[in-house]
Amino acid sequence: MKFGGTSVADLERIHNVARHVKREHDAGHEVAVVVSAMAGKTNELVSWVNQMPTVTGSNAPFFDAREYDSIVASGEQVTSGLLAIALQSMGIDARSWLGWQIPLQTNNAHGAARIEDIDGGEIIERMGAGQVAVVAGFQGIAPDNRIATLGRGGSDTSAVALAAGIKADRCDIYTDVDGVYTTDPRVAPSAQRLDRVSFEEMLEMASLGAKVLQVRSVELAMVHGVRLFVRSSFDDPDATDSAAGANPPGTLICDEDEIVEQQIVTGIAYAKDEAQISLRRVADKPGVAAAVFSPLAEAHVNVDMIVQNVSEDGSVTDMTFTVPDGDLGKAKKVLEAAQGDIGYEVVQSDPGMVKVSVIGIGMRSHAGVASTAFQALADKGVNIRAITTSEIKISILIDSDYAELAVRTLHSAYGLDKEAA
Amino acid sequence: MKFGGTSVADLERIHNVARHVKREHDAGHEVAVVVSAMAGKTNELVSWVNQMPTVTGSNAPFFDAREYDSIVASGEQVTSGLLAIALQSMGIDARSWLGWQIPLQTNNAHGAARIEDIDGGEIIERMGAGQVAVVAGFQGIAPDNRIATLGRGGSDTSAVALAAGIKADRCDIYTDVDGVYTTDPRVAPSAQRLDRVSFEEMLEMASLGAKVLQVRSVELAMVHGVRLFVRSSFDDPDATDSAAGANPPGTLICDEDEIVEQQIVTGIAYAKDEAQISLRRVADKPGVAAAVFSPLAEAHVNVDMIVQNVSEDGSVTDMTFTVPDGDLGKAKKVLEAAQGDIGYEVVQSDPGMVKVSVIGIGMRSHAGVASTAFQALADKGVNIRAITTSEIKISILIDSDYAELAVRTLHSAYGLDKEAA
Repeated sequence: MKFGGTSVADLERIHNVARHVKREHDAGHEVAVVVSAMAGKTNELVSWVNQMPTVTGSNAPFFDAREYDSIVASGEQVTSGLLAIALQSMGIDARSWLGWQIPLQTNNAHGAARIEDIDGGEIIERMGAGQVAVVAGFQGIAPDNRIATLGRGGSDTSAVALAAGIKADRCDIYTDVDGVYTTDPRVAPSAQRLDRVSFEEMLEMASLGAKVLQVRSVELAMVHGVRLFVRSSFDDPDATDSAAGANPPGTLICDEDEIVEQQIVTGIAYAKDEAQISLRRVADKPGVAAAVFSPLAEAHVNVDMIVQNVSEDGSVTDMTFTVPDGDLGKAKKVLEAAQGDIGYEVVQSDPGMVKVSVIGIGMRSHAGVASTAFQALADKGVNIRAITTSEIKISILIDSDYAELAVRTLHSAYGLDKEAA
Repeated sequence: MKFGGTSVADLERIHNVARHVKREHDAGHEVAVVVSAMAGKTNELVSWVNQMPTVTGSNAPFFDAREYDSIVASGEQVTSGLLAIALQSMGIDARSWLGWQIPLQTNNAHGAARIEDIDGGEIIERMGAGQVAVVAGFQGIAPDNRIATLGRGGSDTSAVALAAGIKADRCDIYTDVDGVYTTDPRVAPSAQRLDRVSFEEMLEMASLGAKVLQVRSVELAMVHGVRLFVRSSFDDPDATDSAAGANPPGTLICDEDEIVEQQIVTGIAYAKDEAQISLRRVADKPGVAAAVFSPLAEAHVNVDMIVQNVSEDGSVTDMTFTVPDGDLGKAKKVLEAAQGDIGYEVVQSDPGMVKVSVIGIGMRSHAGVASTAFQALADKGVNIRAITTSEIKISILIDSDYAELAVRTLHSAYGLDKEAA
């Protein structure tokens, strides 16, 4: 069971989390719980770190990631202890575990460390004896014997890694929504909660803006075959009796083999605040893509969609890609500086784009999925700027004015709308 | 160098602490720094722990000291990291050390653990290489591989233990006062700062209410011969250049051999809110003192002064002792329940007493010290309730109405008043 920052925001909510845990414990399950810091706490600690150089009057930003980790990891240390006490006061044997106590070993990349190994032995033993393990998320111990954090949102990753390390049957992610939807319900009120989603689809959805789960945690779950169940921590903790086999509302993220009736399209995702950049009349020769994207990567500009068409005569081509709106200025400077190396003629750019994506494992074996999208958008007069596709996804770049219309249109076109009650 | 909670209360003060450290570092000293949590932070964390059982609706107080320790120790974890960053941003090589990283090993008495061992090896090595060690105070690691805290005020003890462990020349305690005074300056404005005080005298002063240093830390310093220097963290960090040998204002607490011109009386301490209890016509036989004080100890009543006079005829005697005002009710109940075992006739009690103490190593070799006190108090019409003495201390119990008058009178009587400017 994993609970995020809003689920442990204050003592009352921590107590509510304890009731969720008690329900599962009372149903006869062996339970480990991973907790985030109280909502806002991590931001406060990070802001203290960031304010330090300002206080000293230095201009250059200063940052020792090892100290940052030690400071910031204290937030989860507090909530894990408080939840253990809350459980104990309900008569449940429980203890907190810090990253270095498990140990959850990471590499040396302080501030955004990767998990190298997790020793679940002692926790498995104690869970077998009826003790609930309350694990501080987001943290581990690096080879230098110092605390390492896994980067923002790392508690999801902690939970999945722990679930793999203790060979858990399932990893329940309690969050502030009650599952994964066919699209954003704020945009399309007809969106429905999905009962099951494959790891591959969830990866595309998570990275495309349906921010229920961290992408890294889904990747890890897929690699280790950890079944994830996304559900709401704001449910009545006592309402669902898992001993009785009742299914609480939520979405199971699992291997596609477990999904019996696979829909062709599972959901519609979108990513706002994209900017489009087009290089016109780029020399169509080996190494030109590297000449474009290497300097952008060095400048930490995150390039998303990339479209390059086959040139007519094999000499020059056009290249289009997207970057976050906020990086557009930086990207243009980098490209202008590299104009000689790349050899393009003109750079054009347009901020305020949105990328809408149609996602579904079923489209691998079904023809005509893309044309349905193009026709539906054309019928509404939505102009398509660029298209990219993968095996299970079609992404379409459009003007952001049409974002909501496009999402709703595609949602209907693939039959995802909830039936009227 | 040790800095308490008010000295690291916010980022600006942490930066100020860094300047103090820089001054010593620049003067060529190898420096280790022990820090407390930001002022108020420990109380906040403790209050969260204490609120947990209330939230659950339980009546019995619930408390797992191991979880308490993990939660509360996070405060020092934050300040140690922030100070390390502040030092680094000034160009000083520094790193934070948590209790378990050193390791500072404690016993298993979570919540009020005692230090068993401290391995200064790696810190000594790094200090030799020019790195400042910033150590989270108040914490260590217990044999169960979990964080243990040393009890409130434990950061002083951490600092002294570390100073002993790394064989430091001196342990500088930066606090919110600029040293140890002959008495409380709020009571006697003529009080003077002492340049030097012996460990023994400081122990008597600390336990008697001159709350500059934790008693445990002074004991530890005496045992290991760690010289303590008490000074103010609110001094201008750049004002005193220790390289030039200038003496900053403060008090050195050291072995009496180091104190060349020993005064007969060093200071006047007082402890308020004492209650006097007298048992009348107690059987004067072996075991009666145990019969009185064992049940009080079991009820956690802290007994202070104990006075038992030689009985006239060897059959019955009177016994007087003091307890904290707040424990008086509990103490009386315990004594009434034990009346049969003890065999006293009447119990009398009086709250609102104050204990005034005259302290000085010099009185060991000087006669007439006590009579000076009695005469001075008699001259002012202060009635003495009870008297106890040790080798270096005379304690007098009086009505609290006369507390300030008695302190000022004794301060003058022993020639401790500051000369008029």
